[in-house]
Amino acid sequence: MIGIGAGDPDQLTVQAIREIEQARVFFVLDKGAAKRDLVALREGILDTYGRDYRVVHAKDPERDRRPADYRAAVADWHRLRVALYTQLIRDELPEDGHGAFLVWGDPALYDSTITLVEAVAQQVEIEYSVVPGISSASTLAARHRIPLNRIGEPVQLTTGRQLAEGLPGDAVVLLDANCTFREYYGEDLEIFWGAYLGTPDEILLSGPLAEVGPEIERLRAEARAEKGWIMDTYLLRSRS
Amino acid sequence: MIGIGAGDPDQLTVQAIREIEQARVFFVLDKGAAKRDLVALREGILDTYGRDYRVVHAKDPERDRRPADYRAAVADWHRLRVALYTQLIRDELPEDGHGAFLVWGDPALYDSTITLVEAVAQQVEIEYSVVPGISSASTLAARHRIPLNRIGEPVQLTTGRQLAEGLPGDAVVLLDANCTFREYYGEDLEIFWGAYLGTPDEILLSGPLAEVGPEIERLRAEARAEKGWIMDTYLLRSRS
Ligand SMILES: C[S@@+](CC[C@H](N)C(=O)[O-])C[C@H]1O[C@@H](n2cnc3c(N)ncnc32)[C@H](O)[C@@H]1O
Ligand SMILES: C[S@@+](CC[C@H](N)C(=O)[O-])C[C@H]1O[C@@H](n2cnc3c(N)ncnc32)[C@H](O)[C@@H]1O
Repeated sequence: MIGIGAGDPDQLTVQAIREIEQARVFFVLDKGAAKRDLVALREGILDTYGRDYRVVHAKDPERDRRPADYRAAVADWHRLRVALYTQLIRDELPEDGHGAFLVWGDPALYDSTITLVEAVAQQVEIEYSVVPGISSASTLAARHRIPLNRIGEPVQLTTGRQLAEGLPGDAVVLLDANCTFREYYGEDLEIFWGAYLGTPDEILLSGPLAEVGPEIERLRAEARAEKGWIMDTYLLRSRS
Repeated sequence: MIGIGAGDPDQLTVQAIREIEQARVFFVLDKGAAKRDLVALREGILDTYGRDYRVVHAKDPERDRRPADYRAAVADWHRLRVALYTQLIRDELPEDGHGAFLVWGDPALYDSTITLVEAVAQQVEIEYSVVPGISSASTLAARHRIPLNRIGEPVQLTTGRQLAEGLPGDAVVLLDANCTFREYYGEDLEIFWGAYLGTPDEILLSGPLAEVGPEIERLRAEARAEKGWIMDTYLLRSRS
């Protein structure tokens, strides 16, 4: 599993490039039209660094996007994927073959590939390793030229869904389709927001939450309508 | 400010290499004998990728390691460093010159360089940017082949000092010279620990905290005595 960074192909590490050069089969998930640009980025990376490779496309199982029971839905989806990938690896990877998954950002953050491959490795004999990548959180911080943590202070990595439950202190929020930050306009917070980070369409905005929050909501809806999809993340922190 | 990864020179990104190729002056902090190996790693990187460059060594101001008032001590130290770097940049960087700091891991995590340069930029006219790097937290996860977060759950990045105040849920702990995890042997936790990550001396250990914790304490003390310094980090999480 090779972390490829969060949008800029130049975020690839030397280690990632070496692994890409060595793999002969790449497993690529087609996540539907909306994510076509992301698949294109992966293909660009393979064009540049891949050697003598084959791409195996897989259509990720459908997933219930608004399930009553979130955990159960994720678990079901996980089981379907494990079965699918076990089969793919059996069919497409020759004995002693070398395959790879290109994983968006850092495989360690809000990505299921590690858990998936761990489960697959119980069904079919494979050796595997993980190459860390630059995450969207790191990219966000770099582009805003800020540290994620205040001196000596903690910072939480979390999701929009979790943020809706309460403010956890300084937090980097991923996977938030609902602008959950708007629940906190009444608090004295600042926000550092970024969309399409590392890509030519990158948008950055920061400032006091109550002031720039509505502007972010507007920009986000506009950009999403125009491109058909959006990926954004933000750091939320108290202003004291 | 260029993130160089947490110990393995192959964690450099393409973007970091390009920036290294372009900089003509590198500012390197000498942090005393204990950290000589770390400076050696930076020098290896410059040997490999640097072009027509000069290294300016600076001795970081002394810092009170056990201050009564932690924040005040950090602030004092910060002021001294700002003055020192403002001077260095005035003296050593020609008009329109291009300099760089190589920053360990990801500049966004528990590192003061961004804050330092931001303050310097108020004293002397410079333009600057930040290149994200692979952090020790990402490296820890990759080497243990685990995600940092559980599915949909938050994870906190924190310090040993903060951990002593209480358990914040799943947490990645940096900057812990005291094996603070030992305060939690009574809880049902598991630990994923790594020292000298990404280097030939890397040590990994994981398991139920109460079982492997004492072994980590022993290994850590031994390794530290032998090499004269240690850098370690760990993920602590509940076993449920
Ligand atoms: C399934 S998670 C994967 C995170 C990824 N493993 C990483 O390290 O960034 C997807 C979320 O990451 C964030 N994200 C990923 N790439 C991004 C980008 N280029 N710009 C902004 N946010 C991004 C968004 O919050 C998105 O909802
Ligand atoms: C001042 S902080 C800098 C963190 C750095 N910016 C990063 O992204 O990893 C230093 C702490 O990072 C962790 N660390 C850095 N490099 C490490 C390595 N190679 N192995 C284990 N821990 C490391 C240790 O917890 C250490 O006390």
